[in-house]
Parts: sequence; structure tokens; C-alpha cells
Amino acid sequence: MNPYLNHAKHLVAVDCIIFGYDLPDKELKLLLLKRIFEPARDKWSLAGGFVQADESLDDAACRILRKLTGLDSVYMKQSYCYGDVGRDPGDRVISVAYYALTSIRDIDSDIVMRNGVHWHSVSRLPDLIFDHNAMVKKALSDLQNDIKITPAGFELLPEKFTLVQLEELYKAIYQHDIDRRNFRKKVVALGILEKLEEKETETSKRGAYYYRYNRETIEKLKREGFYFDLEVS
Amino acid sequence: MNPYLNHAKHLVAVDCIIFGYDLPDKELKLLLLKRIFEPARDKWSLAGGFVQADESLDDAACRILRKLTGLDSVYMKQSYCYGDVGRDPGDRVISVAYYALTSIRDIDSDIVMRNGVHWHSVSRLPDLIFDHNAMVKKALSDLQNDIKITPAGFELLPEKFTLVQLEELYKAIYQHDIDRRNFRKKVVALGILEKLEEKETETSKRGAYYYRYNRETIEKLKREGFYFDLEVS
Repeated sequence: MNPYLNHAKHLVAVDCIIFGYDLPDKELKLLLLKRIFEPARDKWSLAGGFVQADESLDDAACRILRKLTGLDSVYMKQSYCYGDVGRDPGDRVISVAYYALTSIRDIDSDIVMRNGVHWHSVSRLPDLIFDHNAMVKKALSDLQNDIKITPAGFELLPEKFTLVQLEELYKAIYQHDIDRRNFRKKVVALGILEKLEEKETETSKRGAYYYRYNRETIEKLKREGFYFDLEVS
Repeated sequence: MNPYLNHAKHLVAVDCIIFGYDLPDKELKLLLLKRIFEPARDKWSLAGGFVQADESLDDAACRILRKLTGLDSVYMKQSYCYGDVGRDPGDRVISVAYYALTSIRDIDSDIVMRNGVHWHSVSRLPDLIFDHNAMVKKALSDLQNDIKITPAGFELLPEKFTLVQLEELYKAIYQHDIDRRNFRKKVVALGILEKLEEKETETSKRGAYYYRYNRETIEKLKREGFYFDLEVS
């Protein structure tokens, strides 16, 4: 008897929770689409699609992200697999959620027109289809944990940034204030930041030095187990 | 056009990484089965099976665990979803891995006979089928992170335990020594342990007080975000 026979087969989807950081607005944002088919046509949705026969889950996630948003080579990580029987009223669909981190960029205007793509503030999200709000909540919680134990947060920043901007990023992800002195002490102690000669002078007269993260030290810390033991107040 | 039509459907499996803690041997163990069908018949395997049409992933994981091992009501958590195209030579199967935590118990002898169920030390695992070794590695890493930020570790201990036993558990999960003084200080500061009047007297003449964890405080910490900021040496 072939033990693989006579078992149900399932539609498997990938849904992408795409976080971007809006540096001027100091806000964590989420890229959403207007759904263009039934059920739930015209409702806000994550970027999603079905896994094909000849592609891995990771490949499907990259393909769907590229196709629906034009985004390519962004940081992606699997978040959770959702499999409740009635989660999608259209059919039984098991969905693997991925979260993606990117700096906010302009999305090609053809794609915006076709897919209704739009950045929304995470703190003021609309109602999303199906279990997508729960997917966002879980992915945000993953992100909050990940930036404690990995340098993933830096994916959301431009190449050079000030310490204030780094701190604002962490506040935006945690969605609450953090202890500024403690944060600075810890981030400096990690040894992953390189102070540049150049200053950012738009926000204050005196200016604040730009920093960039040292990719080599980060690679080393990743191998050894980064531990950004961050006390938040 | 129905957007759900014309997409590939997939076999979806659940595989359970079942960790148990052997208190006398101070070892983290893994429950494995002898696979009873081709491909890879007679090789060591995780407890796995296919998700049916009318059950959620969580329900499938519980059913498969109960059916293959007789274990019921144990702590279970989703670990990761594995979907590489060629991961199972029998057919394309997408597998959702769950990890389970339990104290080591006797498995019903009928089940042992039928499924070849056996506890193996995590530090001396045999070669497992397909990508099951990678699944174990990832689940162990999940567990190591989870015991830093949740009280999941206590699921592996009996109702009452000594501080030395708790420390040995953390050492067994991390697979290396930890700073004993620091660990005790932090675990006491969390306020989740209740000292009992009773002593454990088998391992030393003077005896060591038994503790038990306070479920109420743990529930409170879970809601607020447990943070067992554990320095390991």
C-alpha cells in the first residue's frame, strides 16, 4: 500500500507581511493591497498567492512579493503557518505567512494602479480580509523578538543613520518608549556601529554624527548568537 | 474567473519533535519512531502524518501525536513549515513541524511494539529520514529561545523540583554550562518559584528544598511578556 495515496490535498498559499520604516514620520508601516477578486473584493489584504507544484515556499514568497509589489531582494523570514479549516471562505487554503523588511520605497505607478498597493501605518491599520490582522499581529510580535536577538532591525534603515534615528526605529517597532540612556549604552557596547565623519544637520543646528553598521561584525555576531538584551521601559 | 481554480494542490503533513527531559540522567531526549513503510522503511523518523480535509493543523498535530505515541495534552507549539520541492522522495509533501514538551513517561508497550517508539538523547541522535535532523535542530533552537522569553521550560519538569534540577534542565537544553550564581539570582528575582517545606534527600545528606512554580504568577508574566534575561557562559 502506498501510504501517500488517499490523503486530502490542499491549496497552499503564501501571504507576505511587508514592513517598511518611514524615517521622516518615525512610523512602522505595512504594505497592503486592494483585493481584486471575490470573496472580499476591494477589501485590504496582504500580498498573497498560491504555491505552485515546482517551487519551494521561499521561492513562492519571493515570486509573489515581486509580482504584486515589484519589491526584490528584501529581507524575508517565515513567520507562521495558518491552517484553520474555515479561514478562507473561498476554499480551504493553508497559508504560510512570511514577513519582509524593507525601507519605504516608491512602488512603480503601474503596480500601484493595478494592485492598489499602499503603505499604511501599523498603528492605524484598516480591517483586513480573513485572518490577515492576526497574521500582522503575530509577525509584529516576531519582529519585536527578532530585533532583540538578531540585527534584523537594521534592514529597515538606510545605509547611514544617527543614533536618534536608530532609537526612533526601535520605539516604532516596540510601539512604546524605550530607556534612551540604556539603549545607547547597549548599542555602543555591541560594537556593531561605526561612527562616520559626516553629520546630519537637518534636525538640529549642532548636528548629529551619522553611523553605519559594520557588516563584518554583524556576520560574526550572527554566527555566535547576537543578544541585544534590550530593557524597555 | 474563480481565482482558486487551476492551482496545484499539495499533500500537507505534520511532523512532531517530541522533547522529554530525563531527570535522573540530566538529559534532553527526543521521541523517535521506526518508519514502517517505504521510502526509508526502518529508518528513524519523527512522529508524522497527513493533514486531513476537515482538521486544522493544530488538531492534526494532536491527533498524530496521540495516535503514534499515546501522548495526550502535552505542550505543543508550531516550529516551522518545510516546503522544499524534493524534501520527501515519496511525493511532494509540505510539512508543518511542531515541537512538543513532556516529561519522560512510559509509552504503552503495544505502541512501542507497533511503532518502534524510543527515547533518544538529543546529544547522540541517529540519522533521521529526509530533513528531520534539520527539523530537530531548528526546534531545539526555538526551545532555547523560548525558555529565555517564556516559562516553557517548566513543562519538562515534574510538579516539584530543586533549584539544582532546574539548573540542570537549562544546561541540558542549552547543551552547555550556565553561570550558576547568576541563574539562581535571576530565577529567584522572577518571583515564579514557591519554596516548599519538603526536602529532596536522595542526592545529598543535607537535602535540598523542593520548589514549585506559581501558575498564577506565570500566567501574569505571560500576559505582560516574560523576560528571563539569562546570561549563559
